[in-house]
Amino acid sequence: MTLAEVAKLVNGALEGDGSIEMAGVAGLREADPGDVAFLASPKYAEAMARTKASAVLVRRDWSGAAPCAVIRVDNPEVAFTRLVMATIPPPVQHRPGIHPTAVVAEGVVLGSGVAIEAHCVLEPGAKVGDRTVVGAGCYLGHGASVGKDGLLYPHVTLRERCRIGDRAIVHCGAVIGSDGFGYEPDGERWRKIPQVGIVDIGDDVEIGANVTIDRARFGKTVIGNGVKLDNLIQIAHNVKVGANTAMAAQAAVAGSAIIGRHCQIGGQSAIVGHITVGDNVMLAGSSNIIRDVPSGSILMGYAALPHMEFKRIQAVTGRLPELSRKIADILKRLAALEKDAGKQKGGEG
Amino acid sequence: MTLAEVAKLVNGALEGDGSIEMAGVAGLREADPGDVAFLASPKYAEAMARTKASAVLVRRDWSGAAPCAVIRVDNPEVAFTRLVMATIPPPVQHRPGIHPTAVVAEGVVLGSGVAIEAHCVLEPGAKVGDRTVVGAGCYLGHGASVGKDGLLYPHVTLRERCRIGDRAIVHCGAVIGSDGFGYEPDGERWRKIPQVGIVDIGDDVEIGANVTIDRARFGKTVIGNGVKLDNLIQIAHNVKVGANTAMAAQAAVAGSAIIGRHCQIGGQSAIVGHITVGDNVMLAGSSNIIRDVPSGSILMGYAALPHMEFKRIQAVTGRLPELSRKIADILKRLAALEKDAGKQKGGEG
Amino acid sequence: MTLAEVAKLVNGALEGDGSIEMAGVAGLREADPGDVAFLASPKYAEAMARTKASAVLVRRDWSGAAPCAVIRVDNPEVAFTRLVMATIPPPVQHRPGIHPTAVVAEGVVLGSGVAIEAHCVLEPGAKVGDRTVVGAGCYLGHGASVGKDGLLYPHVTLRERCRIGDRAIVHCGAVIGSDGFGYEPDGERWRKIPQVGIVDIGDDVEIGANVTIDRARFGKTVIGNGVKLDNLIQIAHNVKVGANTAMAAQAAVAGSAIIGRHCQIGGQSAIVGHITVGDNVMLAGSSNIIRDVPSGSILMGYAALPHMEFKRIQAVTGRLPELSRKIADILKRLAALEKDAGKQKGGEG
Repeated sequence: MTLAEVAKLVNGALEGDGSIEMAGVAGLREADPGDVAFLASPKYAEAMARTKASAVLVRRDWSGAAPCAVIRVDNPEVAFTRLVMATIPPPVQHRPGIHPTAVVAEGVVLGSGVAIEAHCVLEPGAKVGDRTVVGAGCYLGHGASVGKDGLLYPHVTLRERCRIGDRAIVHCGAVIGSDGFGYEPDGERWRKIPQVGIVDIGDDVEIGANVTIDRARFGKTVIGNGVKLDNLIQIAHNVKVGANTAMAAQAAVAGSAIIGRHCQIGGQSAIVGHITVGDNVMLAGSSNIIRDVPSGSILMGYAALPHMEFKRIQAVTGRLPELSRKIADILKRLAALEKDAGKQKGGEG
Repeated sequence: MTLAEVAKLVNGALEGDGSIEMAGVAGLREADPGDVAFLASPKYAEAMARTKASAVLVRRDWSGAAPCAVIRVDNPEVAFTRLVMATIPPPVQHRPGIHPTAVVAEGVVLGSGVAIEAHCVLEPGAKVGDRTVVGAGCYLGHGASVGKDGLLYPHVTLRERCRIGDRAIVHCGAVIGSDGFGYEPDGERWRKIPQVGIVDIGDDVEIGANVTIDRARFGKTVIGNGVKLDNLIQIAHNVKVGANTAMAAQAAVAGSAIIGRHCQIGGQSAIVGHITVGDNVMLAGSSNIIRDVPSGSILMGYAALPHMEFKRIQAVTGRLPELSRKIADILKRLAALEKDAGKQKGGEG
Repeated sequence: MTLAEVAKLVNGALEGDGSIEMAGVAGLREADPGDVAFLASPKYAEAMARTKASAVLVRRDWSGAAPCAVIRVDNPEVAFTRLVMATIPPPVQHRPGIHPTAVVAEGVVLGSGVAIEAHCVLEPGAKVGDRTVVGAGCYLGHGASVGKDGLLYPHVTLRERCRIGDRAIVHCGAVIGSDGFGYEPDGERWRKIPQVGIVDIGDDVEIGANVTIDRARFGKTVIGNGVKLDNLIQIAHNVKVGANTAMAAQAAVAGSAIIGRHCQIGGQSAIVGHITVGDNVMLAGSSNIIRDVPSGSILMGYAALPHMEFKRIQAVTGRLPELSRKIADILKRLAALEKDAGKQKGGEG
């Protein structure tokens, strides 16, 4: 597509060379020559000035200087989305059916329109709902089940008896139903506590690449409806994650913690075991919750504090060396005053 | 099973409707209606009051109020374990033999009663001990070996020449024997240092899902007997982990660190490279060890300190804004005093 | 090989029993009986005194005491490398060709000398360059491509349209091209934002085991030439990592962050989204960058500070309980002085 054709597609007015071929689409800062980007807000003026894009979608009334062609449109973000959608290749199509290399045990229950791709293994009693795609190399254990309209990318493992609801998206390498980490001391050695529960995952859940979710010691580890988990997250045994909670990459939740609905948990953060976190809690990245937290809390830091308190402490922390020097100075001046006062007292006596 | 049948199974006295069908077993806090839970200690009275369980196993002399049926027993925890064991489905049975889709090279040595499941790949020289199960899609590299009575869950990778002892449990997606992360600078570029050692894992080890253990630069990375690793842990090249040490999820040990016996390493914690950690060391979650640590230490925090010291510092940290204000106030009062003292001195002269 | 033969191989002078059989090679501290180690510098005298090695390579003029045989050589490190190289088994050979269990779609483009190992899946449009090895169980999505002379270890996933350059090394379980973590709020629920971009990886890149690299929302996530990523790292959508940057295990980079050339990012550290990190930046382990950072910065800690500043703060942090006590003491002494001064003022009036 040329820039002239791009302008036509988005009902825009081109200022620049319409014969330039568009190579791709990108953000202002990430764009390479050939890319078309967009300027959503005047606050990105600096990125605009430095962009390497060949053309930028801007508002009709935009009046800055551009290092490249511009295409004036009513709404740059909407126009950009239209452009993106017009240029991406069609999504991968998964043909229904069982690939001849898949190993599907007797007694597996498959819905209509299911795709079981190459080298999958489905053990006895596994169930797959209508139109769900089980990607290449996935493993569904004995009695494991996935609902309808789901998409399991390649190399997902769902161990025995674990359940996933409808419309799930599970990314590559995710492991669902591994044993919880539980031992009893036996002198210096550790005796394994059987982990005989399951993982029970609701509807509309998305699980990131290489995530691990442990099965319960008994009963179930629960991932509520609408939960979104980013990559490399650890969910320990018997955890409950409430509906519509979202967690960023590498977060971890320790055993038997209960997390409320619609929380937002930052990347690399941690929630210790056996505590209860309310609804709508926000936890900053690289932070820890180590005790029960009421609904609506916004928390940051190690042994996370309310974020305003944390920021006040952080502000003072940076001044600690200065505070230390001040105290030393005060001590000196105070000693001098005390000496004087002592003398005067003496003089008075 | 009805509650009446449950009571009979655990030699308990039921107070409540014996005809209710038990749906499952769960902890007090996690229980849903239909579940049977147990009250181990009076300190969980609040969880008892709020439980959604349909019945709770309690001590015979327990005297609190219950929101559901109770079953009085001698030891609620023991009774609960008996109930759990009576209700779980039998564990998955792995039939000995080589699945027809497995690719087993010539010269592979298999013990008696071994199960090599679907889509496994065993390279030349790999060895598997008696009765060990190699789950679906596992990869055993050239000359890799696993001892007897082991269980490798699906999608485990054991690279060339690495060794695992007897009675191992390795969870899905674990990677054992990946190259250590070692480079030499070559101007701005990095030149790879060959990683030609192995990983040597002892007996009775359990390795969590998606764990990564790097092979040594030369010689071996060593995981001692009885070590337990939770999910998503990183063990770098040439590390030695002493017998019966346990690490929680997402912990990391950097290159050539030596960790003693029977340590307990918290989740998301880190141990830097080239240091020695003694025996029986406990490191809190989200904490770091950055220098040698003597046996028996209990440590917390960034650049981990003895945990009592850490707690004292944490206590003061929360009062930092207050301390800062106090110092400002002192400075003001001190200046006033000094001014007065100066005047008086002047008056005296 | 006996110690006498070892000495001959490295042109060394043996002091000790030449008939001892060498079991392996190892560092001084990790060595077991039978191993040969080396003493690179006098500063390891203590490790030398305690080594369990059966022989140690030392400089010809070394004069310390040894608990075992020594072999005197011109350069112990060079001699050791020669010994290592003489003793390791030859590297695994990958025979060119397509394994009969691999599933290679029509229209896949394979270079000369390519090895496609057991149970691989290559979707339509995938490309593999000359002499590249695609290890057992790898998945290459629709239109995905890998350059020449690459090595993909088993169980790597490269999703549709993503690209890897020449001479790549990708370790087991790495996932390249998973969806970015992007949602729009829809009441309490989350609506998925399509992630239609790709991952574009340069030449001479090494990617660790179980790493996850997300595809861009649109455009591309970029990993520059010569980048080295350790295990279990998370790279979010639309990130750009500059050439020759190296990151240690479990580091994470959030969405749309731009990282410069030749940075060194410590293990478990994090870089928040939408910021720009300059060239040659060094970030300590377990640290966070939360705002733009100029080239050449050396940073440590939570909300990472210049490392000298961080160390000054850390030094004072350890003295916080003492500082707190000092302030309380000052306040008392000051109050006493103020009281006296008040009296005296009164006396003057």
